[in-house]
Amino acid sequence: MIYLDNAATTQMSESALDALMYASKECYGNPSSLHFSGRQASKLIQESREIIAKCIGAEPEEIYFTSGGTESDNWAIEQALNQKCERIITSSIEHHAVLNAVEKMHHAGLKTEYLPVTDGCLVNVNDFEATMNSQKSFVSIMFQNNETGVVQPIKKLSDILHSYNTSSIFHTDAVQAIGHIQIDVKQLGIDMLSGSAHKFNGPKGVGFLFVRKDCTISPLIVGGGQEYGLRSGTENVAGIYAMARALEENVKQIKANSAYIKKLETQLLEGLEKNNIKYWINADNDARATGIISVSIKNIDGEGLLNMLDMHGICVSIGSACNSKSKEPSYVLKAMGLSEDRIDSAIRVSIGRYNTERDINILIENICKLYNVTLRTL
Amino acid sequence: MIYLDNAATTQMSESALDALMYASKECYGNPSSLHFSGRQASKLIQESREIIAKCIGAEPEEIYFTSGGTESDNWAIEQALNQKCERIITSSIEHHAVLNAVEKMHHAGLKTEYLPVTDGCLVNVNDFEATMNSQKSFVSIMFQNNETGVVQPIKKLSDILHSYNTSSIFHTDAVQAIGHIQIDVKQLGIDMLSGSAHKFNGPKGVGFLFVRKDCTISPLIVGGGQEYGLRSGTENVAGIYAMARALEENVKQIKANSAYIKKLETQLLEGLEKNNIKYWINADNDARATGIISVSIKNIDGEGLLNMLDMHGICVSIGSACNSKSKEPSYVLKAMGLSEDRIDSAIRVSIGRYNTERDINILIENICKLYNVTLRTL
Repeated sequence: MIYLDNAATTQMSESALDALMYASKECYGNPSSLHFSGRQASKLIQESREIIAKCIGAEPEEIYFTSGGTESDNWAIEQALNQKCERIITSSIEHHAVLNAVEKMHHAGLKTEYLPVTDGCLVNVNDFEATMNSQKSFVSIMFQNNETGVVQPIKKLSDILHSYNTSSIFHTDAVQAIGHIQIDVKQLGIDMLSGSAHKFNGPKGVGFLFVRKDCTISPLIVGGGQEYGLRSGTENVAGIYAMARALEENVKQIKANSAYIKKLETQLLEGLEKNNIKYWINADNDARATGIISVSIKNIDGEGLLNMLDMHGICVSIGSACNSKSKEPSYVLKAMGLSEDRIDSAIRVSIGRYNTERDINILIENICKLYNVTLRTL
Repeated sequence: MIYLDNAATTQMSESALDALMYASKECYGNPSSLHFSGRQASKLIQESREIIAKCIGAEPEEIYFTSGGTESDNWAIEQALNQKCERIITSSIEHHAVLNAVEKMHHAGLKTEYLPVTDGCLVNVNDFEATMNSQKSFVSIMFQNNETGVVQPIKKLSDILHSYNTSSIFHTDAVQAIGHIQIDVKQLGIDMLSGSAHKFNGPKGVGFLFVRKDCTISPLIVGGGQEYGLRSGTENVAGIYAMARALEENVKQIKANSAYIKKLETQLLEGLEKNNIKYWINADNDARATGIISVSIKNIDGEGLLNMLDMHGICVSIGSACNSKSKEPSYVLKAMGLSEDRIDSAIRVSIGRYNTERDINILIENICKLYNVTLRTL
């Protein structure tokens, strides 16, 4: 199997697997228990909190553990209501965890506004500023889009927001970016940030929400009062520890990994060119971070290509995994105003640190085969 | 270390650890992905759903995976509002995941009623029937209490509830019971049931909610539409599979485990008696399931005993883990109307399948030492 769908989820790293097993076997105590076994588990969580905080420029007490990016997004966005914001501003290309949570707030009576994007998948800073006034607003703009890889101008947006009202809240769904792009929440002016372990070689079912210290929040899930009383439920000790180890390792290697992935990406695009394959990259290429490429190949149906590649053991996707079972064309590519043909042709190739030159060669080979067969039948 | 706090959390079984590692290493695909890797993960989830359903007498499509018992309880109880129930009836000895979720519903405008318990920790069936009328009610009564081990008369309560209004909803927090007591949701007339893997030798951070097929629910967490559109978020594949394997194994061995634990329990109580230690069991002993013993030893402070045992590497608890950091006396024992002395003396010893005769002997030895020292100083 050649796995080129690293934006959907990633393989766990050796260090994350080791951490998962160590904690699952050796630290099985309940972190709330007062005895040795409880303290041991509690210490592991504190250590994990410190590691993760350091990776994103936060304080340990600003990190709350959750069951993943979706819960983090839901929890963050509920604060728009809890913290009495007058409106929510988001974009049309957010993950459904954000879009559907915003819709829930809309049903609860909150005003919601959706920013459009350019044909390169970028939120326009001037469009954003045009919506600004002195109202306390809750803004949720994703860090990196999961279909196109485009990185939004987070610092510019948060600066503008806070210049109109310092108590406005800037949330970013950074699920796709964390561990792959260097993020410093303080430097970027982020108030809340969602992360998910399985996107950076950690386990599934665990994530976190960063909340700036002086930003008040109330819980989504209540009970035994874990996580400073803000997220109840016995902590997923092993998952949390494995997430911390995965993130630590990825952040340490962020430059080396990026350079390596960039090399494979270049190999892919040059390979397509050498073979005279006509393609478009669906993104503003200057704003796109390395690793995720939404590519439309002329005259080739994306779903057909995905299925053909799948038969040859190659995993890619059309759009995002979470929307894969919907028969609708990608709402992200539609929001970018791309032509129907280009949307229908799109596949997403997402390269990770475990991919090799050989993987890319086999992918190119298989795309060429289908392209040439299709050319002959046209 | 001698771990006698199995009601707080359990060691993972070998089969659960193997399942966790297998799925974490070999089945890392996103279950929503359309390729081989996605299908492989999706199949594992379906297999897990079938295993868990079978263990509790449910249909696979009645099982929804969550991040644990607390989320399951929160999600279930929110249905009181979503499904337009006219009131919530619960008991004064529920876990805080239920109590605090009910309080949230109260703040949202729902009428809430709390049933008292007997000095044996039992909800009185006549008390319950006295509250009945034709209103559509949401009832949440725990299956087995986590501090005393007492099992509530679930079938009687659900039968009474449904005899007054067939659309009333009966939810039970069965976190403490699942995997230890045979449960058949259909036979017991349960509409919703919460379970958590780490209480039956599975991993932390994963659980499930059973919802009867013709019982409508709406999601607590929205997003990519996983779990039939009712619980979004990339599935915790490895955690879910490990949970299923853990439950399957425990349910298969339920009689043998119970008999073994009962033997150790008898050893403990006989040991205390042989050593002339004066104690009370805080429970209606006929209604108490084997494994959890809340015991008050005359003139011995529970917290002091816990700390002394901890120094000797023995893990027990006072009250439940989730309330351990609160300095308040146990609200469960208070609701039972026990004297202050008896509450202050209480410790909870919870025995699991991995405990041995030697563990119990060492526990008895240490209790005796402290008891005799205390006797001499009185």
